Amino acid sequence: MMRAVDIIRKKRDGAELSKEEIEFMVWGFTRGDIPDYQMSAWMMAIVWRGMTERETVDLTLAMAHSGDVLDLSAIAPLVLDKHSTGGVGDKTTLVVAPLVASLGLPVGKMSGRGLGFSGGTLDKLESIPGFNVNWTRQQFMDLLRDHGIVVAGQSADLAPADGKMYALRDVTATVESLPLIASSVMSKKIAAGATAIVLDVKTGRGAFMKTEQEAIALAETMVKIGRGAGRRMAAVISDMEQPLGYAVGNALEVAEAIATLQGRGPADFTEHCLVVAAEMLLLAEKCPHAEAGKALLREAIASGRAIAKFREWVRAQGGDDHVVENTGLMPQARLVQDLPSPQSGYVATLDAMKVGLATVALGAGRQRKGEEIDRAVGVVLKKKVGDRVEKGEPLLVIHANDESRLAEAREQLLAAYTWSDAPVKPAPLIRQIIR
Amino acid sequence: MMRAVDIIRKKRDGAELSKEEIEFMVWGFTRGDIPDYQMSAWMMAIVWRGMTERETVDLTLAMAHSGDVLDLSAIAPLVLDKHSTGGVGDKTTLVVAPLVASLGLPVGKMSGRGLGFSGGTLDKLESIPGFNVNWTRQQFMDLLRDHGIVVAGQSADLAPADGKMYALRDVTATVESLPLIASSVMSKKIAAGATAIVLDVKTGRGAFMKTEQEAIALAETMVKIGRGAGRRMAAVISDMEQPLGYAVGNALEVAEAIATLQGRGPADFTEHCLVVAAEMLLLAEKCPHAEAGKALLREAIASGRAIAKFREWVRAQGGDDHVVENTGLMPQARLVQDLPSPQSGYVATLDAMKVGLATVALGAGRQRKGEEIDRAVGVVLKKKVGDRVEKGEPLLVIHANDESRLAEAREQLLAAYTWSDAPVKPAPLIRQIIR
Repeated sequence: MMRAVDIIRKKRDGAELSKEEIEFMVWGFTRGDIPDYQMSAWMMAIVWRGMTERETVDLTLAMAHSGDVLDLSAIAPLVLDKHSTGGVGDKTTLVVAPLVASLGLPVGKMSGRGLGFSGGTLDKLESIPGFNVNWTRQQFMDLLRDHGIVVAGQSADLAPADGKMYALRDVTATVESLPLIASSVMSKKIAAGATAIVLDVKTGRGAFMKTEQEAIALAETMVKIGRGAGRRMAAVISDMEQPLGYAVGNALEVAEAIATLQGRGPADFTEHCLVVAAEMLLLAEKCPHAEAGKALLREAIASGRAIAKFREWVRAQGGDDHVVENTGLMPQARLVQDLPSPQSGYVATLDAMKVGLATVALGAGRQRKGEEIDRAVGVVLKKKVGDRVEKGEPLLVIHANDESRLAEAREQLLAAYTWSDAPVKPAPLIRQIIR
Repeated sequence: MMRAVDIIRKKRDGAELSKEEIEFMVWGFTRGDIPDYQMSAWMMAIVWRGMTERETVDLTLAMAHSGDVLDLSAIAPLVLDKHSTGGVGDKTTLVVAPLVASLGLPVGKMSGRGLGFSGGTLDKLESIPGFNVNWTRQQFMDLLRDHGIVVAGQSADLAPADGKMYALRDVTATVESLPLIASSVMSKKIAAGATAIVLDVKTGRGAFMKTEQEAIALAETMVKIGRGAGRRMAAVISDMEQPLGYAVGNALEVAEAIATLQGRGPADFTEHCLVVAAEMLLLAEKCPHAEAGKALLREAIASGRAIAKFREWVRAQGGDDHVVENTGLMPQARLVQDLPSPQSGYVATLDAMKVGLATVALGAGRQRKGEEIDRAVGVVLKKKVGDRVEKGEPLLVIHANDESRLAEAREQLLAAYTWSDAPVKPAPLIRQIIR
């Protein structure tokens, strides 16, 4: 008879656990047969001893199969998904999903809410009047079949082990573990049914993984897990030292995504979207190499197919697609104010996390789950790393609805910038691609 | 504001915790403010990272002060205690307590029940008709004042953190940690009020610490903790490869203790008692060196003072002291049977743990807390390591009350012996003394 205490001891002593032992822990915990205190001791032993690749795959599959796993094969032989580890100004899904879908490739994604300094795709989409992210499993599949695109909230019965384990990790200092982080992300992806997944792993001040080395290790682990579970996988390691694009804040980011789908987006953000989308095309064998994929994607933008797909998607999920012509249909901030530069020079650093926290202070994000957010507020950057700025010139524009929050955010935003007298080259946007 | 998750993280990352942080965890957990799952994650982090000497002292004191700490200074300036880490045939307290008390030194001890292969002093004492180990705190102090000797069960309000922590460690594989083991023992000793404590740390097959190195490390840690808490401390590291003395089993051990107090005990057990008791005399500054202490103790035995003190103690705690003349007043087994040697040779090893488990099989010990035990059953060894034995000669005598249990125990006891053709020297009884 298996006993939790023996499995905890085995991991504590650094041994490799069997698939059966891992399933015993994860499923027993999900059912409530294994108490919190044994699970937390086990997870601390995992933080300590780590897990082999085989154990990590088995952990992820046990978590994925702790509830129902979506089978999308009746809808399409290949369904694409992308996942970002989270960052500041990261509205990539809003562009990449319709862009790839406009080329006839089905994109089905379940997404989360923002927490802390990093925003959430669902919160951004809900800036569009009428846009609905709450769909049943059947509706999710219907939207995918009828429109080739759907982005919905994660249903509660998907990988229930993950939610329960994460809540426990959060209060027992067992978050920081490569196998636990990787299995948390991948169990949800696998349960959501996509057959080909591109991971966008962020690195830098505004990312969970502060160093490129950590980001690569996480990406490699997640790619191995996905392949171990029979998924086609690729990963992009990308910069999150400074925010991605110019807009940070829900409605402001949707507006920037719309501009990008029309070919008028910021250069860095556009390039980032093309890189991620091209990897999705490669996984779908839609192009022989990434450059050919990017050409297809540029053509989809230039021809208007991309923005047309965006309109179809917004309408399908109940939203008002007039937002494309008139972004003013989304919530608008009452107070719009420039932040003038306190000095002349080149922008040396622009701390993504500080910008993220400043927008949380404005009300764009939440500190705790379930908090209400203000979709109108945020910032639009004017100067990013490497840009020349004269004293008094605007660094960014703040969109706020509250005077005192605005004042607080101003201070935080000023502290996000550092200057240099000599020209500065920003860190490369794309650090590595794992195929 | 202190948060448990931050303290767990700090230990997880290998940092040293402050006294305040340790008290926050231990007292919060005792009150029920810190949940099991945080405590178990914290204890796993302690298993992983260990604790400095300072942290271990603070942990022990926090556990001791999680309830009331006895102040015995009104009764005597110095109260002696001894503590064994547990072994097979270890009836040392039954001899040492009255022996030391007979020299006018107060001995006040709180003791535990047996669990698993190792016996408990309370279980042994209760073999004496009428002997009572359940006393209130006031009665404990009265007995100590009036008779200079008391051995009682640990009251529940003494170091309540320890009982709660131990129950959790038992099911979360966090038992095996030097600071957690040492603080568990020492918190109870400190709370019980003795001012000078001799530790008897066992090493070998029948001990919790299998190697001498582990036993020395534990002893050194506990001595440092005790001194850090202002106690006079010494430790004896002693052999538990084979059982101590000849008798294993509750009433049988009491009979052997009585014989020893009358100068008729086994040589190894008598020597062991003299070594432990002499260290107590040294702590009390009753003698200039250990040999002088042993001389005083031998004189107490020879003069009859020792057995007279034993009688007084038994009567004081409600027991029938006629047990000294007639050990048959204690429970007697129905089936008494020799175990003949299957071969001739020298006894090479006699596995203390196997002997202990065989007596548990007979009913002398318990597998789970609260189980009833049979005080009559056990074994009396005839041959120990180094003894010459001829085929068919009795290795030991089994005392049983059940035929099938007797048969089971026979097999286990035979498996406890190995033989050699060449003469064998037993491992030294006393391995080290830490003063």
